[in-house]
Amino acid sequence: MQLAFIGIPGIPMVEPGDDLLELINAGLATIGETIQDGDVLVLAQKIVSKAEDRYLDLRTVEPSAEAVALGAEVDKEPRKVQAILDESVEVVRKRPGVLIVEHRLGFVQANAGIDQSNIEGDADDPEAICLLLPEDPDASARALREAVATRLGVRVGVIINDSIGRAWRNGSLGLAIGVAGFTALEDHIGGQDIFGRELVVTQVGAADEMAAGASLVMGQTDEKTPVVLVRGYAPREPEAMDQRGVQPLIRPRDMDLFR
Amino acid sequence: MQLAFIGIPGIPMVEPGDDLLELINAGLATIGETIQDGDVLVLAQKIVSKAEDRYLDLRTVEPSAEAVALGAEVDKEPRKVQAILDESVEVVRKRPGVLIVEHRLGFVQANAGIDQSNIEGDADDPEAICLLLPEDPDASARALREAVATRLGVRVGVIINDSIGRAWRNGSLGLAIGVAGFTALEDHIGGQDIFGRELVVTQVGAADEMAAGASLVMGQTDEKTPVVLVRGYAPREPEAMDQRGVQPLIRPRDMDLFR
Repeated sequence: MQLAFIGIPGIPMVEPGDDLLELINAGLATIGETIQDGDVLVLAQKIVSKAEDRYLDLRTVEPSAEAVALGAEVDKEPRKVQAILDESVEVVRKRPGVLIVEHRLGFVQANAGIDQSNIEGDADDPEAICLLLPEDPDASARALREAVATRLGVRVGVIINDSIGRAWRNGSLGLAIGVAGFTALEDHIGGQDIFGRELVVTQVGAADEMAAGASLVMGQTDEKTPVVLVRGYAPREPEAMDQRGVQPLIRPRDMDLFR
Repeated sequence: MQLAFIGIPGIPMVEPGDDLLELINAGLATIGETIQDGDVLVLAQKIVSKAEDRYLDLRTVEPSAEAVALGAEVDKEPRKVQAILDESVEVVRKRPGVLIVEHRLGFVQANAGIDQSNIEGDADDPEAICLLLPEDPDASARALREAVATRLGVRVGVIINDSIGRAWRNGSLGLAIGVAGFTALEDHIGGQDIFGRELVVTQVGAADEMAAGASLVMGQTDEKTPVVLVRGYAPREPEAMDQRGVQPLIRPRDMDLFR
């Protein structure tokens, strides 16, 4: 088995309303490639958010008393803290410089995934413009998958990834925040090992593993390669498992020992 | 940029003392490939442990009173609990069926990475034989890298991966537990984004991202593809950063908000 992670070249800075599939096709054309049946497209969250115009101008945000107090506690700008709280359901950990929350979509991550890097700001107030996660990343992934099916007649998986920190280990990983046409969590419960013993490690975060591998190709400090085409993946699960999006990867709060 | 993750076919069940490089070369030969300069070899922990004869026969383990009590609490066999404690420096979380520890090497993972699946057991006592992590996985990775340099005259990176669970998300990921000739943690502190703003996400777990991508190719339920050759990786860090092994990925306990 061989997997190719192909960085798609030539994708320009994405603007609100841009047709990502058109940009992907144009980029692939420069290397003589087209999307094929069974390919998986991994897209950086940032370009999906930009195409969906998920910009937020912090000058329009009125920080609450809670945001002002929390901002003082964690040494962050109150308007940004308010934006983070607006995107979240729970503050998981806080200390100066660090605000880790549960995003309304269930992801535990710093600053609710709100981003200010590689965004063309406003000269008068360079910190005013930030970018939120897509409103519904599974829906964004599904829409691209359906556009590929309709316009190109091929079936692909789509994963939207974001760089997310983790407990216990330094360094972010590219992890899945939106999934379509791909089994995010492989479940081998009830399976057996090659000696017929019951398997202990039973669930595999397949979409996260692919998102992480694609992140290596994307790089992290620029926006040169925000889409990676993965070719050669052989799904191990029935296709019906592909329709559940990213949710199977999210551990329910009451099952989580690290909240 | 294109990364190829090539599963090496035909690697047999590994026995203690086996020469892994010989098995890798033989497997690559069946697909007309050889190891080339700049390739990265990702090896499943299990075959490295087997080659290093890291088997433990639990019938030789005398559980302490602590292991007996903890075993009753978490519903695990006292001999296995003793083996886990012997490999660990701290119990991080426990509940029935779950024992998450800090391994003496710094990894936070269930059961100190001790494994009983896909191991040829003893017919009289099928649960008696288990497999520990390599004694020093960075040293194991370095030894393979040096063997490749000496015998084939090419320079490669080596990553040993293991399937490890995580906080907040379901499903294990393949993560690095031993690294040689590869910058495990890329550090962009002080870097700038494309608009000249200081980067916020500054550290990337590159070895974990590659370990995760390789894990997709390895699969999880069998031992058919325990070695993946990754071709096309362009290191972003000076070569001096390659000599630090896996340690940069381990977050020091006093910096960890999730202990």
